[in-house]
Amino acid sequence: MKQIEVQQKVLKRHQDIAQHLRGRFDKASLLAINIMGSPGCGKTALLEVTAKELANRYRTLVLEGDLQTDNDAKRVRAVGLKALQINTNQACHLDALMVERALADSKVNLDDFDLLVIENVGNLVCPAGFPLGEHCRIVLCSVPEGFDKPAKYPRMFYKADCVLLNKIDLLDVLDFDKDAFWQFVKQVAPKAARFEISCKTGQGTDAWLDWLNQQRTNLLGK
Amino acid sequence: MKQIEVQQKVLKRHQDIAQHLRGRFDKASLLAINIMGSPGCGKTALLEVTAKELANRYRTLVLEGDLQTDNDAKRVRAVGLKALQINTNQACHLDALMVERALADSKVNLDDFDLLVIENVGNLVCPAGFPLGEHCRIVLCSVPEGFDKPAKYPRMFYKADCVLLNKIDLLDVLDFDKDAFWQFVKQVAPKAARFEISCKTGQGTDAWLDWLNQQRTNLLGK
Repeated sequence: MKQIEVQQKVLKRHQDIAQHLRGRFDKASLLAINIMGSPGCGKTALLEVTAKELANRYRTLVLEGDLQTDNDAKRVRAVGLKALQINTNQACHLDALMVERALADSKVNLDDFDLLVIENVGNLVCPAGFPLGEHCRIVLCSVPEGFDKPAKYPRMFYKADCVLLNKIDLLDVLDFDKDAFWQFVKQVAPKAARFEISCKTGQGTDAWLDWLNQQRTNLLGK
Repeated sequence: MKQIEVQQKVLKRHQDIAQHLRGRFDKASLLAINIMGSPGCGKTALLEVTAKELANRYRTLVLEGDLQTDNDAKRVRAVGLKALQINTNQACHLDALMVERALADSKVNLDDFDLLVIENVGNLVCPAGFPLGEHCRIVLCSVPEGFDKPAKYPRMFYKADCVLLNKIDLLDVLDFDKDAFWQFVKQVAPKAARFEISCKTGQGTDAWLDWLNQQRTNLLGK
Protein backbone atom coordinates (compact mmCIF):
# COMPACT_ATOMS: atom_id res chain seq x y z
CA MET A 1 0.00 0.00 0.00
CA LYS A 2 2.82 2.37 0.90
CA GLN A 3 4.35 1.74 -2.54
CA ILE A 4 1.10 2.65 -4.29
CA GLU A 5 0.66 5.81 -2.19
CA VAL A 6 4.18 7.01 -2.96
CA GLN A 7 3.75 6.24 -6.66
CA GLN A 8 0.49 8.18 -6.76
CA LYS A 9 2.11 11.18 -5.09
CA VAL A 10 5.00 11.10 -7.57
CA LEU A 11 2.64 10.80 -10.54
CA LYS A 12 0.48 13.65 -9.23
CA ARG A 13 3.57 15.85 -8.96
CA HIS A 14 4.56 15.05 -12.55
CA GLN A 15 1.02 15.81 -13.73
CA ASP A 16 1.10 19.18 -11.94
CA ILE A 17 4.41 20.11 -13.56
CA ALA A 18 3.12 18.95 -16.96
CA GLN A 19 0.04 21.15 -16.53
CA HIS A 20 2.26 24.10 -15.63
CA LEU A 21 4.41 23.46 -18.72
CA ARG A 22 1.30 23.31 -20.88
CA GLY A 23 0.29 26.72 -19.57
CA ARG A 24 3.68 28.13 -20.50
CA PHE A 25 3.53 26.60 -24.00
CA ASP A 26 0.04 28.02 -24.54
CA LYS A 27 1.08 31.46 -23.37
CA ALA A 28 3.97 31.43 -25.85
CA SER A 29 1.71 30.09 -28.65
CA LEU A 30 4.19 27.26 -28.89
CA LEU A 31 2.94 23.96 -30.28
CA ALA A 32 4.54 21.14 -28.27
CA ILE A 33 4.62 17.59 -29.61
CA ASN A 34 5.89 14.46 -27.87
CA ILE A 35 7.30 11.86 -30.28
CA MET A 36 7.43 8.34 -28.85
CA GLY A 37 8.43 4.97 -30.25
CA SER A 38 10.80 2.00 -30.03
CA PRO A 39 14.57 2.36 -30.25
CA GLY A 40 15.54 2.85 -33.87
CA CYS A 41 12.02 3.44 -35.22
CA GLY A 42 13.22 6.69 -36.82
CA LYS A 43 12.33 9.49 -34.41
CA THR A 44 15.52 11.45 -35.08
CA ALA A 45 15.43 10.54 -38.78
CA LEU A 46 11.95 12.12 -38.99
CA LEU A 47 13.43 15.40 -37.78
CA GLU A 48 16.37 15.10 -40.16
CA VAL A 49 14.26 14.48 -43.25
CA THR A 50 11.82 17.32 -42.46
CA ALA A 51 14.37 19.78 -41.02
CA LYS A 52 14.31 22.17 -43.95
CA GLU A 53 10.51 22.39 -44.07
CA LEU A 54 10.30 22.73 -40.28
CA ALA A 55 12.90 25.53 -40.31
CA ASN A 56 11.05 27.30 -43.14
CA ARG A 57 7.72 27.16 -41.36
CA TYR A 58 8.53 27.44 -37.66
CA ARG A 59 11.11 28.68 -35.21
CA THR A 60 11.75 25.14 -33.95
CA LEU A 61 13.25 23.88 -30.72
CA VAL A 62 14.03 20.19 -30.23
CA LEU A 63 14.43 18.38 -26.89
CA GLU A 64 16.29 15.11 -27.33
CA GLY A 65 15.72 12.47 -24.65
CA ASP A 66 18.25 9.62 -24.34
CA LEU A 67 19.70 7.52 -21.55
CA GLN A 68 23.24 8.29 -22.72
CA THR A 69 25.14 10.17 -25.47
CA ASP A 70 24.24 13.37 -27.29
CA ASN A 71 24.25 11.59 -30.66
CA ASP A 72 20.70 12.64 -31.48
CA ALA A 73 21.11 16.30 -30.54
CA LYS A 74 24.22 16.39 -32.75
CA ARG A 75 22.31 14.84 -35.66
CA VAL A 76 19.49 17.37 -35.31
CA ARG A 77 21.88 20.32 -35.00
CA ALA A 78 23.71 19.09 -38.10
CA VAL A 79 20.56 19.71 -40.13
CA GLY A 80 20.19 23.21 -38.73
CA LEU A 81 17.68 22.87 -35.89
CA LYS A 82 18.27 24.13 -32.36
CA ALA A 83 18.44 21.11 -30.03
CA LEU A 84 18.87 20.50 -26.30
CA GLN A 85 19.92 17.06 -25.05
CA ILE A 86 18.44 15.50 -21.93
CA ASN A 87 20.31 12.44 -20.64
CA THR A 88 18.08 10.42 -18.37
CA ASN A 89 20.89 8.02 -17.32
CA GLN A 90 18.85 5.11 -15.98
CA ALA A 91 15.37 6.48 -16.58
CA CYS A 92 13.33 4.81 -19.30
CA HIS A 93 11.29 7.90 -20.22
CA LEU A 94 11.26 11.68 -20.02
CA ASP A 95 9.21 13.26 -17.27
CA ALA A 96 7.85 16.78 -16.96
CA LEU A 97 10.45 17.76 -14.37
CA MET A 98 13.29 16.86 -16.75
CA VAL A 99 11.68 18.98 -19.47
CA GLU A 100 11.16 21.91 -17.10
CA ARG A 101 14.78 21.74 -15.92
CA ALA A 102 16.23 21.43 -19.43
CA LEU A 103 14.30 24.51 -20.53
CA ALA A 104 15.40 26.42 -17.42
CA ASP A 105 19.06 25.39 -17.69
CA SER A 106 19.26 26.37 -21.34
CA LYS A 107 17.70 29.77 -20.56
CA VAL A 108 15.71 29.63 -23.82
CA ASN A 109 12.81 32.03 -24.11
CA LEU A 110 9.74 30.09 -25.20
CA ASP A 111 8.42 33.20 -26.94
CA ASP A 112 11.26 32.79 -29.44
CA PHE A 113 9.81 29.54 -30.79
CA ASP A 114 6.70 28.30 -32.63
CA LEU A 115 7.26 24.55 -32.34
CA LEU A 116 8.73 22.39 -29.59
CA VAL A 117 9.52 18.82 -30.61
CA ILE A 118 10.20 16.50 -27.68
CA GLU A 119 11.84 13.29 -28.83
CA ASN A 120 11.30 10.82 -26.02
CA VAL A 121 13.53 7.92 -24.98
CA GLY A 122 13.24 4.96 -27.34
CA ASN A 123 10.69 2.83 -25.52
CA LEU A 124 7.24 1.62 -26.58
CA VAL A 125 5.96 1.26 -23.01
CA CYS A 126 7.01 3.70 -20.29
CA PRO A 127 6.82 7.16 -21.92
CA ALA A 128 3.05 6.64 -22.34
CA GLY A 129 2.51 7.21 -18.61
CA PHE A 130 4.29 10.56 -18.32
CA PRO A 131 2.65 13.68 -19.77
CA LEU A 132 5.11 16.44 -20.65
CA GLY A 133 2.65 19.27 -21.23
CA GLU A 134 2.50 18.42 -24.93
CA HIS A 135 -0.44 19.33 -27.16
CA CYS A 136 -0.02 16.26 -29.35
CA ARG A 137 1.24 12.75 -28.76
CA ILE A 138 2.86 11.18 -31.79
CA VAL A 139 3.58 7.45 -31.90
CA LEU A 140 6.12 6.42 -34.50
CA CYS A 141 6.22 2.78 -35.58
CA SER A 142 8.36 1.20 -38.24
CA VAL A 143 7.85 -1.68 -40.64
CA PRO A 144 10.71 -3.90 -39.31
CA GLU A 145 9.11 -3.94 -35.84
CA GLY A 146 6.23 -6.04 -37.13
CA PHE A 147 2.55 -5.34 -37.67
CA ASP A 148 1.19 -6.51 -34.31
CA LYS A 149 2.78 -3.86 -32.11
CA PRO A 150 -0.39 -1.75 -31.53
CA ALA A 151 -2.10 -4.89 -30.19
CA LYS A 152 0.85 -5.90 -28.02
CA TYR A 153 1.68 -2.42 -26.68
CA PRO A 154 -1.78 -0.77 -26.60
CA ARG A 155 -1.02 1.62 -23.76
CA MET A 156 1.32 3.62 -25.98
CA PHE A 157 -1.43 4.05 -28.59
CA TYR A 158 -4.50 4.81 -26.43
CA LYS A 159 -3.88 8.57 -26.21
CA ALA A 160 -2.06 9.01 -29.52
CA ASP A 161 -3.14 11.99 -31.62
CA CYS A 162 -1.20 10.69 -34.57
CA VAL A 163 0.37 7.37 -35.53
CA LEU A 164 3.10 7.33 -38.15
CA LEU A 165 4.27 4.16 -39.87
CA ASN A 166 7.88 4.69 -40.92
CA LYS A 167 10.27 2.72 -43.18
CA ILE A 168 7.59 1.94 -45.75
CA ASP A 169 10.45 1.70 -48.27
CA LEU A 170 11.04 -1.73 -46.69
CA LEU A 171 7.51 -3.01 -47.37
CA ASP A 172 8.73 -4.90 -50.45
CA VAL A 173 11.55 -6.57 -48.53
CA LEU A 174 9.76 -7.50 -45.32
CA ASP A 175 6.70 -9.51 -44.51
CA PHE A 176 4.47 -6.80 -42.98
CA ASP A 177 0.66 -6.96 -42.98
CA LYS A 178 -0.11 -3.25 -43.41
CA ASP A 179 -3.89 -3.65 -43.34
CA ALA A 180 -3.73 -5.59 -40.09
CA PHE A 181 -1.40 -2.96 -38.60
CA TRP A 182 -3.83 -0.10 -39.31
CA GLN A 183 -6.75 -2.21 -38.15
CA PHE A 184 -5.02 -2.66 -34.80
CA VAL A 185 -4.31 1.09 -34.63
CA LYS A 186 -7.97 1.91 -35.37
CA GLN A 187 -9.10 -0.44 -32.61
CA VAL A 188 -6.82 1.11 -29.99
CA ALA A 189 -6.74 4.73 -31.16
CA PRO A 190 -9.74 5.28 -33.44
CA LYS A 191 -9.36 9.08 -33.51
CA ALA A 192 -5.63 9.24 -34.22
CA ALA A 193 -4.45 10.64 -37.53
CA ARG A 194 -2.58 8.03 -39.58
CA PHE A 195 0.30 8.49 -42.02
CA GLU A 196 2.72 6.23 -43.85
CA ILE A 197 6.18 7.66 -44.34
CA SER A 198 9.74 6.83 -45.26
CA CYS A 199 12.37 8.95 -43.55
CA LYS A 200 14.85 7.47 -46.02
CA THR A 201 13.11 8.63 -49.20
CA GLY A 202 10.94 11.41 -47.76
CA GLN A 203 7.79 9.70 -49.06
CA GLY A 204 4.66 10.73 -47.19
CA THR A 205 6.25 13.41 -45.05
CA ASP A 206 4.33 16.23 -46.79
CA ALA A 207 1.02 14.92 -45.45
CA TRP A 208 2.54 14.65 -41.97
CA LEU A 209 3.82 18.24 -42.16
CA ASP A 210 0.38 19.43 -43.30
CA TRP A 211 -1.20 17.72 -40.29
CA LEU A 212 1.36 19.36 -38.02
CA ASN A 213 0.57 22.72 -39.56
CA GLN A 214 -3.11 22.14 -38.87
CA GLN A 215 -2.35 21.49 -35.20
CA ARG A 216 -0.48 24.78 -34.97
CA THR A 217 -3.32 26.60 -36.71
CA ASN A 218 -5.76 25.04 -34.23
CA LEU A 219 -3.59 26.21 -31.33
CA LEU A 220 -3.39 29.76 -32.61
CA GLY A 221 -7.15 29.80 -33.17
CA LYS A 222 -7.90 28.99 -29.55
CA MET B 1 13.58 9.79 0.46
CA LYS B 2 10.48 7.71 1.17
CA GLN B 3 10.26 6.90 -2.54
CA ILE B 4 13.86 5.65 -2.63
CA GLU B 5 13.35 3.53 0.51
CA VAL B 6 10.25 1.89 -0.89
CA GLN B 7 11.95 1.28 -4.25
CA GLN B 8 14.91 -0.35 -2.52
CA LYS B 9 12.62 -2.62 -0.52
CA VAL B 10 10.77 -3.65 -3.66
CA LEU B 11 14.01 -4.32 -5.57
CA LYS B 12 15.40 -6.32 -2.65
CA ARG B 13 12.27 -8.47 -2.64
CA HIS B 14 12.62 -9.12 -6.38
CA GLN B 15 16.29 -10.04 -5.92
CA ASP B 16 15.39 -12.49 -3.17
CA ILE B 17 12.78 -14.18 -5.34
CA ALA B 18 15.22 -14.27 -8.28
CA GLN B 19 17.80 -15.94 -6.07
CA HIS B 20 15.23 -18.49 -4.95
CA LEU B 21 14.29 -19.19 -8.58
CA ARG B 22 17.95 -19.63 -9.46
CA GLY B 23 18.24 -22.25 -6.74
CA ARG B 24 15.27 -24.13 -8.16
CA PHE B 25 16.69 -23.97 -11.70
CA ASP B 26 20.07 -25.26 -10.48
CA LYS B 27 18.46 -28.08 -8.54
CA ALA B 28 16.58 -29.18 -11.66
CA SER B 29 19.75 -28.82 -13.84
CA LEU B 30 17.66 -26.45 -15.92
CA LEU B 31 19.53 -23.81 -17.92
CA ALA B 32 17.51 -20.57 -17.75
CA ILE B 33 18.14 -17.76 -20.24
CA ASN B 34 16.54 -14.31 -20.32
CA ILE B 35 16.20 -12.87 -23.83
CA MET B 36 15.84 -9.10 -23.93
CA GLY B 37 15.59 -6.54 -26.72
CA SER B 38 13.48 -3.85 -28.39
CA PRO B 39 9.98 -4.53 -29.72
CA GLY B 40 10.27 -6.37 -33.01
CA CYS B 41 13.98 -7.18 -32.78
CA GLY B 42 13.17 -10.86 -33.37
CA LYS B 43 13.01 -12.53 -29.95
CA THR B 44 10.12 -14.80 -30.90
CA ALA B 45 11.50 -15.32 -34.40
CA LEU B 46 14.74 -16.63 -32.85
CA LEU B 47 12.72 -19.32 -31.09
CA GLU B 48 10.78 -20.10 -34.25
CA VAL B 49 13.84 -20.54 -36.45
CA THR B 50 15.69 -22.70 -33.91
CA ALA B 51 12.66 -24.63 -32.60
CA LYS B 52 13.53 -27.92 -34.26
CA GLU B 53 17.14 -27.91 -33.00
CA LEU B 54 16.03 -26.82 -29.52
CA ALA B 55 13.43 -29.60 -29.39
CA ASN B 56 16.00 -32.17 -30.57
CA ARG B 57 18.54 -31.16 -27.94
CA TYR B 58 16.50 -30.12 -24.90
CA ARG B 59 13.20 -30.55 -23.22
CA THR B 60 12.39 -26.85 -23.63
CA LEU B 61 9.98 -24.59 -21.78
CA VAL B 62 9.33 -21.03 -22.99
CA LEU B 63 7.93 -18.18 -20.88
CA GLU B 64 6.55 -15.41 -23.08
CA GLY B 65 6.35 -11.92 -21.54
CA ASP B 66 4.07 -9.34 -23.16
CA LEU B 67 1.90 -6.46 -22.01
CA GLN B 68 -1.07 -7.85 -23.91
CA THR B 69 -2.06 -10.72 -26.23
CA ASP B 70 -0.81 -14.30 -26.36
CA ASN B 71 0.43 -13.89 -29.93
CA ASP B 72 3.98 -14.91 -29.07
CA ALA B 73 3.04 -18.00 -27.06
CA LYS B 74 0.84 -19.10 -29.98
CA ARG B 75 3.72 -18.60 -32.42
CA VAL B 76 6.08 -20.65 -30.26
CA ARG B 77 3.54 -23.42 -29.70
CA ALA B 78 2.93 -23.55 -33.46
CA VAL B 79 6.54 -24.66 -33.93
CA GLY B 80 6.18 -27.36 -31.32
CA LEU B 81 7.61 -25.85 -28.14
CA LYS B 82 5.79 -25.75 -24.81
CA ALA B 83 5.05 -22.11 -23.95
CA LEU B 84 3.44 -20.21 -21.09
CA GLN B 85 2.24 -16.62 -21.62
CA ILE B 86 2.70 -13.93 -18.97
CA ASN B 87 0.70 -10.75 -19.61
CA THR B 88 2.17 -7.87 -17.63
CA ASN B 89 -0.67 -5.45 -18.54
CA GLN B 90 0.97 -2.12 -17.76
CA ALA B 91 4.38 -3.38 -16.62
CA CYS B 92 7.32 -2.70 -18.91
CA HIS B 93 9.34 -5.77 -17.88
CA LEU B 94 9.04 -9.20 -16.33
CA ASP B 95 9.96 -9.52 -12.68
CA ALA B 96 10.91 -12.59 -10.66
CA LEU B 97 7.52 -12.72 -8.92
CA MET B 98 5.72 -12.94 -12.27
CA VAL B 99 7.99 -15.81 -13.32
CA GLU B 100 7.50 -17.61 -10.01
CA ARG B 101 3.72 -17.26 -10.26
CA ALA B 102 3.55 -18.35 -13.90
CA LEU B 103 5.53 -21.50 -13.07
CA ALA B 104 3.34 -22.19 -10.04
CA ASP B 105 0.05 -21.56 -11.89
CA SER B 106 1.03 -23.84 -14.76
CA LYS B 107 1.99 -26.60 -12.32
CA VAL B 108 4.97 -27.54 -14.52
CA ASN B 109 7.65 -29.69 -12.91
CA LEU B 110 11.03 -28.07 -13.54
CA ASP B 111 12.66 -31.51 -13.46
CA ASP B 112 10.84 -32.25 -16.72
CA PHE B 113 12.88 -29.62 -18.61
CA ASP B 114 16.49 -28.96 -19.62
CA LEU B 115 16.12 -25.41 -20.94
CA LEU B 116 13.95 -22.49 -19.85
CA VAL B 117 13.78 -19.61 -22.31
CA ILE B 118 12.31 -16.44 -20.84
CA GLU B 119 11.35 -13.97 -23.56
CA ASN B 120 11.10 -10.61 -21.86
CA VAL B 121 8.81 -7.69 -22.77
CA GLY B 122 10.10 -5.78 -25.80
CA ASN B 123 12.03 -2.96 -24.16
CA LEU B 124 15.70 -2.00 -24.36
CA VAL B 125 15.72 -0.27 -20.97
CA CYS B 126 13.66 -1.61 -18.07
CA PRO B 127 14.16 -5.41 -18.14
CA ALA B 128 17.87 -4.83 -17.43
CA GLY B 129 17.10 -3.94 -13.80
CA PHE B 130 15.10 -7.07 -12.94
CA PRO B 131 16.92 -10.40 -12.49
CA LEU B 132 14.72 -13.43 -13.06
CA GLY B 133 17.05 -16.10 -11.70
CA GLU B 134 18.49 -16.69 -15.17
CA HIS B 135 21.95 -18.15 -15.79
CA CYS B 136 22.49 -16.12 -18.96
CA ARG B 137 21.32 -12.73 -20.16
CA ILE B 138 20.92 -12.50 -23.91
CA VAL B 139 20.53 -9.12 -25.61
CA LEU B 140 19.08 -9.29 -29.09
CA CYS B 141 19.59 -6.32 -31.39
CA SER B 142 18.56 -5.98 -35.00
CA VAL B 143 20.04 -4.15 -37.97
CA PRO B 144 17.06 -1.79 -38.59
CA GLU B 145 17.40 -0.36 -35.05
CA GLY B 146 20.68 1.30 -35.98
CA PHE B 147 24.27 0.68 -34.97
CA ASP B 148 24.53 3.09 -32.02
CA LYS B 149 22.10 1.35 -29.67
CA PRO B 150 24.75 -0.19 -27.34
CA ALA B 151 26.11 3.32 -26.75
CA LYS B 152 22.69 4.87 -26.22
CA TYR B 153 21.23 2.07 -24.07
CA PRO B 154 24.35 0.80 -22.23
CA ARG B 155 22.53 -0.42 -19.14
CA MET B 156 20.94 -3.25 -21.11
CA PHE B 157 24.35 -4.43 -22.31
CA TYR B 158 26.47 -4.14 -19.12
CA LYS B 159 25.58 -7.57 -17.75
CA ALA B 160 24.94 -9.33 -21.07
CA ASP B 161 26.46 -12.79 -21.43
CA CYS B 162 25.71 -12.80 -25.12
CA VAL B 163 24.77 -10.17 -27.71
CA LEU B 164 23.08 -11.28 -30.91
CA LEU B 165 22.76 -9.05 -33.96
CA ASN B 166 19.69 -10.16 -35.88
CA LYS B 167 18.32 -9.33 -39.36
CA ILE B 168 21.76 -9.37 -40.99
CA ASP B 169 19.94 -10.26 -44.23
CA LEU B 170 19.07 -6.53 -44.30
CA LEU B 171 22.69 -5.36 -44.18
CA ASP B 172 22.71 -4.82 -47.96
CA VAL B 173 19.52 -2.77 -47.86
CA LEU B 174 20.20 -0.60 -44.81
CA ASP B 175 22.94 1.77 -43.82
CA PHE B 176 24.33 -0.02 -40.75
CA ASP B 177 27.93 0.36 -39.53
CA LYS B 178 28.56 -3.17 -38.28
CA ASP B 179 32.13 -2.54 -37.11
CA ALA B 180 31.01 0.44 -35.05
CA PHE B 181 28.15 -1.61 -33.57
CA TRP B 182 30.47 -4.35 -32.33
CA GLN B 183 32.97 -1.79 -31.11
CA PHE B 184 30.24 -0.25 -28.96
CA VAL B 185 29.29 -3.71 -27.66
CA LYS B 186 32.91 -4.51 -26.77
CA GLN B 187 33.20 -1.22 -24.87
CA VAL B 188 30.08 -1.84 -22.80
CA ALA B 189 30.16 -5.64 -22.50
CA PRO B 190 33.71 -6.80 -23.27
CA LYS B 191 33.12 -10.37 -22.07
CA ALA B 192 29.84 -11.02 -23.87
CA ALA B 193 29.76 -13.62 -26.64
CA ARG B 194 28.86 -12.08 -29.99
CA PHE B 195 26.94 -13.58 -32.90
CA GLU B 196 25.42 -12.32 -36.13
CA ILE B 197 22.24 -14.06 -37.20
CA SER B 198 19.26 -13.88 -39.49
CA CYS B 199 16.08 -15.39 -38.11
CA LYS B 200 14.66 -15.09 -41.62
CA THR B 201 17.29 -17.21 -43.37
CA GLY B 202 18.67 -19.12 -40.37
CA GLN B 203 22.17 -17.80 -41.08
CA GLY B 204 24.44 -17.84 -38.02
CA THR B 205 22.04 -19.66 -35.73
CA ASP B 206 24.26 -22.79 -35.55
CA ALA B 207 26.99 -20.85 -33.75
CA TRP B 208 24.42 -19.43 -31.35
CA LEU B 209 23.06 -22.92 -30.63
CA ASP B 210 26.59 -24.21 -30.03
CA TRP B 211 27.17 -21.41 -27.52
CA LEU B 212 23.90 -22.28 -25.80
CA ASN B 213 24.93 -25.92 -25.64
CA GLN B 214 28.21 -24.89 -24.02
CA GLN B 215 26.31 -22.97 -21.33
CA ARG B 216 24.26 -26.06 -20.55
CA THR B 217 27.41 -28.21 -20.42
CA ASN B 218 28.95 -25.69 -18.04
CA LEU B 219 25.87 -25.83 -15.82
CA LEU B 220 25.88 -29.63 -15.69
CA GLY B 221 29.62 -29.62 -14.88
CA LYS B 222 29.18 -27.47 -11.79
